[in-house]
Amino acid sequence: MSKPFVFEKPLGMRDVLPELVKQKQHVLFTIQDVFERWGYAPIETPTLEYFDTVGGVSPTIEKKMFKLLDRSGRTLVLRPDFTAPIARVVSSILKEAPFPIRLSYQGPVYRAQEKEAGRNAEFPEVGIELIGEEAPDADAEVIALASEALQAVRIPSFKLAIGHVGLLNALFAEVTDEHQASELRTYLHQKDYVGYRSVVEKGPFTDGEKTLLLSVLEWRGDMTQLQQAKKLASGEKVQQAFCDLEELWTCLKLYGASSHLLFDLSLVSHRAYYTGVFFEIYASGLGFPLGSGGRYDHLVGQFGRPAPATGFTLKVDRIIEISQLPLPEQPRQVLITYTAQEREQAVDMARQRRQKGEHVTLHRLPTAEAEPKEANGRFDEWVRLEQGGGPGEPSL
Amino acid sequence: MSKPFVFEKPLGMRDVLPELVKQKQHVLFTIQDVFERWGYAPIETPTLEYFDTVGGVSPTIEKKMFKLLDRSGRTLVLRPDFTAPIARVVSSILKEAPFPIRLSYQGPVYRAQEKEAGRNAEFPEVGIELIGEEAPDADAEVIALASEALQAVRIPSFKLAIGHVGLLNALFAEVTDEHQASELRTYLHQKDYVGYRSVVEKGPFTDGEKTLLLSVLEWRGDMTQLQQAKKLASGEKVQQAFCDLEELWTCLKLYGASSHLLFDLSLVSHRAYYTGVFFEIYASGLGFPLGSGGRYDHLVGQFGRPAPATGFTLKVDRIIEISQLPLPEQPRQVLITYTAQEREQAVDMARQRRQKGEHVTLHRLPTAEAEPKEANGRFDEWVRLEQGGGPGEPSL
Repeated sequence: MSKPFVFEKPLGMRDVLPELVKQKQHVLFTIQDVFERWGYAPIETPTLEYFDTVGGVSPTIEKKMFKLLDRSGRTLVLRPDFTAPIARVVSSILKEAPFPIRLSYQGPVYRAQEKEAGRNAEFPEVGIELIGEEAPDADAEVIALASEALQAVRIPSFKLAIGHVGLLNALFAEVTDEHQASELRTYLHQKDYVGYRSVVEKGPFTDGEKTLLLSVLEWRGDMTQLQQAKKLASGEKVQQAFCDLEELWTCLKLYGASSHLLFDLSLVSHRAYYTGVFFEIYASGLGFPLGSGGRYDHLVGQFGRPAPATGFTLKVDRIIEISQLPLPEQPRQVLITYTAQEREQAVDMARQRRQKGEHVTLHRLPTAEAEPKEANGRFDEWVRLEQGGGPGEPSL
Repeated sequence: MSKPFVFEKPLGMRDVLPELVKQKQHVLFTIQDVFERWGYAPIETPTLEYFDTVGGVSPTIEKKMFKLLDRSGRTLVLRPDFTAPIARVVSSILKEAPFPIRLSYQGPVYRAQEKEAGRNAEFPEVGIELIGEEAPDADAEVIALASEALQAVRIPSFKLAIGHVGLLNALFAEVTDEHQASELRTYLHQKDYVGYRSVVEKGPFTDGEKTLLLSVLEWRGDMTQLQQAKKLASGEKVQQAFCDLEELWTCLKLYGASSHLLFDLSLVSHRAYYTGVFFEIYASGLGFPLGSGGRYDHLVGQFGRPAPATGFTLKVDRIIEISQLPLPEQPRQVLITYTAQEREQAVDMARQRRQKGEHVTLHRLPTAEAEPKEANGRFDEWVRLEQGGGPGEPSL
């Protein structure tokens, strides 16, 4: 009867066992509580969306989406991210709600995986969107909230690296054409700084331009570094972006978040829809970002209700991996074993102890001599009613 | 830019707005808390499974499953139910865990919908499985737990209708052939009692057999009705099934659950995998069952680890619709409006009030005269810092 295939799960799909489920629930509960204190209300969007609706605006490349056809032949995708579905919601069932709108979400997103990849195809995310607000206060709120949420779940050491799409674009526009700019952005996105240097040095630039382009790689650090960079650069748009960042920094100091921040003006995001300030979150000892966020002022308008917007998303699996948030004290785990004669007593005792909040497992034994296999150490107490009717001595 | 399709969701897919999300989270939290007190630990299984693995044993008919192909051409399905995936888990990553195993789950299941149906294609379920235990105590525990969970979420009036697959099968085996039995079961499943009567009356039965077959329709009620039915029937297997039900009743009285119970021996489930006692849960004023459960002693073995098992599943949407469980008292909802000059004061006040547990939305106004559109009554208090710097008078 046993067939080998029956144990298999599709590539990148996982079962999550109780200990991890409890941790995950506690982390998500803690993060959502922070989000609610900051005025963000939770919503849910469906697992399946039309490819036509969210596919085009998602940062996930098309071949990494899980696609299927509905009965009328239209292409569906398993939700590749939450930002596009929430933009759809804001422009449809929430179209009468006044801006700004603050929403939070939690749930899995999906990526089709290549055979050799060995990565997850379904992974939980949690995040927020702040839609209809363009003041630097909104950028600061979102960054400070990300920082607060990570502190709430006791991420021991993390940094938010902050970039600015407009600054880099304006800088490249001053000294390169769009083709060169795109090439330079690609190197920066891949963090291939050797490649970037080489392109700059071989490029048709003046010495001053070369110095400026190479200096981008040094534009990392706090406000002091940023102010030095500002002096080097010229151009109205570039200066405006620096002023944005200065005001952002001023706001973030008020939130007490500045110790977790690092400007990194060489940062290029894989999310093409970012339009201004954006950020990536790194924790020490973890090779991948914990999450990312940023301003996307042109995305919501693609759903028919133009509005500036910003938000962030956190990777729940990575957070659980390094979170030092302790689980709340677990109730006492009790096993009650009994035979048919002690059934009434067993059920009564279980009721009373469950009412007190204890976790009680009832196990009827076939005979008084039988040894329950499950009494294997995961219980704090084992009550053996079959040994004579009394509540017995705790034997574990 | 606005395209009509961008607002659309696939057939049967829904967005869930904050008020309902909060209700749903509270209902699920309450139910899982009951499950944990009874010794059931939560697990998660993936959204996608191989059709070969779970498709064949799911009670969902194949054409109602959402299917897609993976990159190697194998057919995947969106999880049609939780019982088969949990049987897979018990036989694979939990294969060393001793029986009995008690697990709980919550999450969406999926049904492909016909164009005209107008029903949901993604709906949340919550439930438990008790695997490796065949005593009537296990059937009783599962039924009593379903009843306790429904009381915990304040379902005002519900009944669990209990049937027995073995009893009806044994009864039919005594007086009909398998073809006739199948026909009779179909009428009972569709609750077409007129059709059932007609087939019995026209059938090749003795008067005594007709009386017996027709009496099945009257076998509804409490233990008294059941004992009368038992006298009418003959045959060893039929009598054994009646004895099972008597012992089940004895157990359920100990749990105090008997006021919610109703035997209905004419009950036929759409789940072909049930092998013994099973039940459907009805609430007054609701046309569809709230949930169902039962014994399935042959399913887990199909995954290579034979074991008796029982469990139940609840339809979360239907429970939310009629639950009278109040939400916990909601924290104070506060709006603080400010202009750039009061930013520091606003951020400080927000921090202090958030620490006290209040839900605080910050809104920077462009000018002191601006009227925030969102101050629309959903806040308990509106602090206008821009009107002079003081914490101001609550103005809502």
